[in-house]
Amino acid sequence: MAAPQSDSAEYLAKKQRLRKVLTLYGRKPTLEALLDANTAVQRLHLADSNRGGGIIAEILEHAKRRGVEVRYHSREQLARISRNSKQDQGVACDIDCPNYLELTQWLNASSGTERQHLMALDGVTNPQNLGMIIRSVAASPLHGVIVPQRGCAELSPLVVKASAGALFKAPLCRVERLLPALRQLQQHGFALAMLSSHRATPLPQWRPPAKVVYVMGNESDGVSAEIAELCQERLMIPMANGVESLNVAVAAALVAFSGSA
Amino acid sequence: MAAPQSDSAEYLAKKQRLRKVLTLYGRKPTLEALLDANTAVQRLHLADSNRGGGIIAEILEHAKRRGVEVRYHSREQLARISRNSKQDQGVACDIDCPNYLELTQWLNASSGTERQHLMALDGVTNPQNLGMIIRSVAASPLHGVIVPQRGCAELSPLVVKASAGALFKAPLCRVERLLPALRQLQQHGFALAMLSSHRATPLPQWRPPAKVVYVMGNESDGVSAEIAELCQERLMIPMANGVESLNVAVAAALVAFSGSA
Repeated sequence: MAAPQSDSAEYLAKKQRLRKVLTLYGRKPTLEALLDANTAVQRLHLADSNRGGGIIAEILEHAKRRGVEVRYHSREQLARISRNSKQDQGVACDIDCPNYLELTQWLNASSGTERQHLMALDGVTNPQNLGMIIRSVAASPLHGVIVPQRGCAELSPLVVKASAGALFKAPLCRVERLLPALRQLQQHGFALAMLSSHRATPLPQWRPPAKVVYVMGNESDGVSAEIAELCQERLMIPMANGVESLNVAVAAALVAFSGSA
Repeated sequence: MAAPQSDSAEYLAKKQRLRKVLTLYGRKPTLEALLDANTAVQRLHLADSNRGGGIIAEILEHAKRRGVEVRYHSREQLARISRNSKQDQGVACDIDCPNYLELTQWLNASSGTERQHLMALDGVTNPQNLGMIIRSVAASPLHGVIVPQRGCAELSPLVVKASAGALFKAPLCRVERLLPALRQLQQHGFALAMLSSHRATPLPQWRPPAKVVYVMGNESDGVSAEIAELCQERLMIPMANGVESLNVAVAAALVAFSGSA
């Protein structure tokens, strides 16, 4: 099957621009975003069917105060914007995420000696963990985190909350599916590393190559079989007292900061 | 005021033995403890008022299978055992925690050159965070974690769950209040260190002395003022992308494992 021939410059520019926007939904999350001076709310979306007063009046008041553009939609249009009609409560907002990245930025980095240390998430389904990981990676020396649309928790208000707002500052890259993205990165010289309990290099002894992607897996099942097969590098975090594993968000933070310690 | 003169050998032995037991409550948590082969359930406590059948029958069946001692109590006696009559559902169990420690074990370690690296929690009130921290410390090279009875979340089934069972394996020390315990440790040659955003040593550059206690503070307010005054050492985790702070459980893990990286 041929790839769709829609990769014109305008299309790519629009796609890239769109990727730098995260759409939040729900009344309370939207109000919180408007109240947080550090969150760049670009646009407020309201369903025509919302009754005025109460929290809707409050949302409109703060949007006005901040000069945020307000758009009205039918209930159906709003559902297409929020992509979660069950929980959007007739309200959504677009938030600027200036640090969002395209996979091509890493693929096209010409020199193999420039340090590019990434993290990729394979099936992190708990919103708390996802938010914590994004927060930790944003704060860490890593260059970015890849969160696939399939298999991971969606970037919902719960994730925003668990990230303590770092979701908007994080060098985040969205891809549709993780496996093809990792294959591409591998073809461009990235080593793929995952945590494993046997035949693994202890993290304190690990000397990473210039280009590496650390893959973190699902809370219960770890990295999926087909992705584990791609990963040549196995790392382990030595553990005391017979503890068998760490919380995935804790393990991700130890990996993300391991280069700096 | 004179200290109570009840520190006889028998009293101390009993106190120490008691501290090596954690009492869980609730029907589901008790059943889960009985189903987990790694959890050493010592004793099952049931209220006389429980109706037989259902989950109670299941609990009794697994207690019998494992040879766990069963004791029956009045509702009032059970409330004294669980210390949470609102949530105990007429069921509690005692769990062996062989790695529980006494503060005196650290205070009396004679040589100042022996490495004793501890963590102490000052007002960690979220059960999820508390459980994650206990799990991380148990797995880390630290020698123990001090969880005061006052100011932190109680060691409830929620904490056990968030610790993924590591609560029973952790080198855990319980004290009534943290401040006097830290004063004692300081008098016995322990340096006290806390995270801080200014005038602080970056964690990667920190060379800890032989005896140190890392104090982690409350999720929102950090370390309390009177304890911050005691801490001579200030550490910071360098953060990128304008992220202002890390989740306390993540920060605790980075500190706990920092010696090993």
